[in-house]
Amino acid sequence: MTNKIMKIPIEISARHIHLSKPHAEVLFGVGYEFKVLKELSQHGQFAHKETVKLVGPKGEMENVRYLGPFRGKTQIEISESGARKLGIDPPFRRSGDLEGSVGVKVVGPKGELDLKEGVIIALRHIHMDTETAKKLNLKNLDKVKVDINGVRDLIFENVIVRVRDDFKLSMHLDTDEANAAGINAENHFGELLLS
Amino acid sequence: MTNKIMKIPIEISARHIHLSKPHAEVLFGVGYEFKVLKELSQHGQFAHKETVKLVGPKGEMENVRYLGPFRGKTQIEISESGARKLGIDPPFRRSGDLEGSVGVKVVGPKGELDLKEGVIIALRHIHMDTETAKKLNLKNLDKVKVDINGVRDLIFENVIVRVRDDFKLSMHLDTDEANAAGINAENHFGELLLS
Repeated sequence: MTNKIMKIPIEISARHIHLSKPHAEVLFGVGYEFKVLKELSQHGQFAHKETVKLVGPKGEMENVRYLGPFRGKTQIEISESGARKLGIDPPFRRSGDLEGSVGVKVVGPKGELDLKEGVIIALRHIHMDTETAKKLNLKNLDKVKVDINGVRDLIFENVIVRVRDDFKLSMHLDTDEANAAGINAENHFGELLLS
Repeated sequence: MTNKIMKIPIEISARHIHLSKPHAEVLFGVGYEFKVLKELSQHGQFAHKETVKLVGPKGEMENVRYLGPFRGKTQIEISESGARKLGIDPPFRRSGDLEGSVGVKVVGPKGELDLKEGVIIALRHIHMDTETAKKLNLKNLDKVKVDINGVRDLIFENVIVRVRDDFKLSMHLDTDEANAAGINAENHFGELLLS
């Protein structure tokens, strides 16, 4: 690489839930057909119109969006701010790494779940297609730095790169991180710092 | 300086309000005596037991702590997360720089205020005594970088240094920034990066 910087689009992950099929059936009823609100940037991923409510020891959180399709395990991603509101203490984890994470009560229109685990605060990461990763000499789970410009200028370190053929280049931050970095409709690109 | 790094304690500024005397009289009544909850790290500053409620177009925020003593102008500092909950869009500002900031309704036990301005999101900053600043060759309003270690490792750039004889060395972050950087009871120091 001759130039040291690559522009990367940033998306903000608000609180959301991924559901296993059995859990979806408990919350929404057997055979319920979920409605698509919009396609997400990553291939085959959807935000659905349906939401659930989370109930923790200290508070509740309404309108937690269901992102499909079904997954093997139910996973809930919230911010630290959200976790404090609920009164739970989820670990910082990569998506899918749920062992020993924390639980919460999930309320849907047709039923409730008392999850023992599944709630995490997602570690900041970049989705990257295999071709781009090859060009940048990066492999799956490498860590990189991303510089954000603007009034809340900062450099995110420890940004995990997730590489897959069908991924579309995009950095995912949670709402706390996005707010701390001043990410908004006008400022939603970072600069991948290549060494 | 021979070493390039200086350890700096970090304090988290939760939402709070500073009151002018006339505004305090409207909210709490003339002659009301505020009770001290605790002394703050900066000389002569107190967190009081009293709180107010903020009411915005989209939502309310309870338990916004009053920090004394009285100031010339009422100032409210909230996070971006808090601003969204209220439905207002405050600018990023240094403390005291309130012209053209946004307003909010403030509710106290004895009265209400419909503020036209005074709400800001505080720019991250370091309080530094004059002697330390001199040693580091820094002057008031200089900008520095601070590295935070841990699972949410990042480098805050554009950190404003505020220098005064009676300041005690401390970096102030709002709750979004602290959450994004993984600041908590176990991890509350940064490294001032000196060039």
